[in-house]
Parts: sequence; structure tokens; C-alpha cells
Amino acid sequence: MEKKRTTIVLFSGDYDKAMAAYIIANGAAAYDHEVTIFHTFWGLNALRKEAMVPTKKGFMEKMFGKMMPRGADKMGLSKMNFAGMGPKMIKSVMKKHNAVPLPDLIEMAKEQDVKLVACTMTMDLLGLQKEELVDGIDYAGVAAYLADAEEGNVNLFI
Amino acid sequence: MEKKRTTIVLFSGDYDKAMAAYIIANGAAAYDHEVTIFHTFWGLNALRKEAMVPTKKGFMEKMFGKMMPRGADKMGLSKMNFAGMGPKMIKSVMKKHNAVPLPDLIEMAKEQDVKLVACTMTMDLLGLQKEELVDGIDYAGVAAYLADAEEGNVNLFI
Amino acid sequence: MEKKRTTIVLFSGDYDKAMAAYIIANGAAAYDHEVTIFHTFWGLNALRKEAMVPTKKGFMEKMFGKMMPRGADKMGLSKMNFAGMGPKMIKSVMKKHNAVPLPDLIEMAKEQDVKLVACTMTMDLLGLQKEELVDGIDYAGVAAYLADAEEGNVNLFI
Repeated sequence: MEKKRTTIVLFSGDYDKAMAAYIIANGAAAYDHEVTIFHTFWGLNALRKEAMVPTKKGFMEKMFGKMMPRGADKMGLSKMNFAGMGPKMIKSVMKKHNAVPLPDLIEMAKEQDVKLVACTMTMDLLGLQKEELVDGIDYAGVAAYLADAEEGNVNLFI
Repeated sequence: MEKKRTTIVLFSGDYDKAMAAYIIANGAAAYDHEVTIFHTFWGLNALRKEAMVPTKKGFMEKMFGKMMPRGADKMGLSKMNFAGMGPKMIKSVMKKHNAVPLPDLIEMAKEQDVKLVACTMTMDLLGLQKEELVDGIDYAGVAAYLADAEEGNVNLFI
Repeated sequence: MEKKRTTIVLFSGDYDKAMAAYIIANGAAAYDHEVTIFHTFWGLNALRKEAMVPTKKGFMEKMFGKMMPRGADKMGLSKMNFAGMGPKMIKSVMKKHNAVPLPDLIEMAKEQDVKLVACTMTMDLLGLQKEELVDGIDYAGVAAYLADAEEGNVNLFI
């Protein structure tokens, strides 16, 4: 029997889109899919540590580092962000309805052996270093992504 | 012979992206695919009734209900929205070129037996109730989405 | 043995998203996939010639033509666009890190026989004419897209 496989490119740095990615990933893992989330471009921000990590960087890389959110909990919404009010509203209704917040969805994914990959090309481009990203993740490029993607049916770009 | 299947997650609440989703869905149905559109997050707005439906809701749910567009025809564009001018321009050129507007694309999808699903988790989160959504749709969660998605090749997240 | 195939709908007119699409496409072509990029809606802008091409158009079509970027190099970012500063920053770090800029990625895709398709329905709608688009591309509709997409596993909507 063919193995079931779900492979998600998380390109977006939006809280709501990352939530959708992780909800699908956790669901697929629960239904015995092998699951990979390949974090590229702004999607890498979901894997950043919240704490400021001292690193040596060029000017541009420092700028990007400062302007981009540090970690899942700091990300904005794709719609109705309202200068940060939107995420507060969403998190408030999520709490009320016992929905799982994004940082916990990421932990859950790790526990279910979802493979979390950081795109090395983007890290190079935006000047993100391994020390700035959370532990327990893989580092790879587009070739590794394709090797996973071509083996399964459920391929999403989020 | 394997059945052909197209499964679309419609996450976006933009008029143009929803149009793309429904054009692909209608095309796939015409070519004998079994087609599902799973409406989640802002994509649910495409299934809202235009009329205001009186419901009992908490404060936050009322806020979301008010701020989100009621139905396909009220949605904005992902690009060049210009505070609502963009959708008017697009609808004007669509009329001129006899392109099918979104509400009619949705009707067409129903007639072609495209399965339209509302994500129950999002409904719960944003406080949307069945009475507020159009008739003839299904209600399901991520498990049902995956069951459809894993059976076909064409899986898109829009 | 089954042929490997990657089919991408490029809906977005953002520089960063188009880059992601072309990086995946070039990667897949290098790993012997047959690759199609179907440019629809704002994604068509990546195929526009930089030079102004004189055409006869109606008022609305002229407006769209003026407001939309002419070619890959003129496109904005999906995040941190900062009224055009974002693309400059990205291009600056790309240069520093020897990353391939979008117009070169498109050339590379052509050399690798990636099939670049312009969506005829969008061309009609936005009033884009063949003379305004780069050479060496195909013209087709949703039926041709589906024929490619249903034959492969890696289907993305970007």
C-alpha cells in the first residue's frame, strides 16, 4: 500500500495562514500521513525564537531581523490585522473557544513527528542564523522539498 | 481506473481568489472530477447570506460578523482594492467581457455537484451560525477535508 | 514508470511569491519533472514586457494596464513592501548573496523547457494582448491547466 504523505510549503508569515498550515499538518499526522512543513520566506518567522539572540550580521540582515516578527506568537493576520488589534481579537476568541494557539500547534506537530524544515536559501537571504531558530528542526533546500512532495498527493503552498 | 479528484481549501476572503477557486472547481467538475471546496477562515465569507440574519452572539463574534463581508458579492480584491473601487472595476470589465460573476460561479458549482463545505472549527471560532450561511452546503472539519484530499492529485490551497 | 510532473498556478503578482514559484519550478525541472506554470490574474504581470507596447484598448483596460506592473522586475512584495523600498532591499540582499533575480529565474525556466502559460481568460478580462507579453510562452485556459495538473502529484497555487 502506498504511504500517505502531506507536504506543505509555508511561505506566509501570517498568524492565521500558519495556523491553517499547522492544523492541516496535525490532522494529517493524526491520520497516519508522513508530514513535512517546509518553511520558506516569511514562513520562517514561525520558527524564530522569541528571545533576541545576539548574532553578527550585516546592516541589511539586521534590518530584516528587526522588522520581522520573532516567533509564531508575534505574527500578524492576513486580513483585518488593524495594526495588531486583529491578532488580539483572534487570540481572544480562540481562548474563549478553547482553540489551540499557534505556538502550541507547533509543539503538537513536533510531538507527532511532523518534519519541520527551515529553507536554507531563505536563511541565507534574510540573514537568519540557526541560533535564532527553535530547536528540533531540519535544514534543507528545494531539492529536499521536492523529494518529499513528489511522493504524496496532498501538496499545499500556504 | 482511478477517479479524478480536485480538492480546494478556500482560505482567502478575496473576491479574485475565490473566483479563481470556483473557476478551477467548475472546470474540474466539467472534466468529470469529483470536486470539493473546503471553506475555512475568511473563505467562509463566500458562503454567507447577503441578508442580515438575527442571531444570539457574544460581543467578539458580533464584531467579526459585522466586519466581515456578507457573501461573495461583498468581498474585496487581494490586489488593487482601492477601498472598494477595485472590485467595481473588475465587475465592470467582467460584465463587458461576459465573464461569470462570483455568485453565479457558486450557483454553477452547486449545479455541477461540487461539494461545498463550511469548516466547522472556523464557524465556531468566528461565531458564524448555520442560519447565516447559504443553503445546500456541508459542514465538516479537517478530517473530512483530508479524506477527500488524499484521494486525488489536484490539491490546492487558495 | 510514472512521469513526474509539477504544475503551478501563479495567481499572485508579488515579486517574492513569483520567486518562490520559479525556484520550485526550476528545481523540479532539474529533477526531471515536466513543469508548467499557469499564469493567471496578477501572475500574468510577471510575463509582461518591460517596454510600453502601443495597443488599442478600452478605458478600463487602459487603466488596468497602467496600474499593473510591467514585468517581473517591477513587481512588489507580499510583505514589507514599504511603498517600493521592500523590493529594493530584497534585491540588494539577493545581489549580495548571489541569489538569482526573478527575470533571470524566468529565463532559466525557459531554458529548462518549463512550460509558461498565459491564462487567456485573464488576458481577455484585464485587456492584456499578446504583443504586451514576452515571447516563447503558451496561451491556454483552465481546461489545459487541468489536463496538466491531473497527471502529477505536485500541484501548487501560489
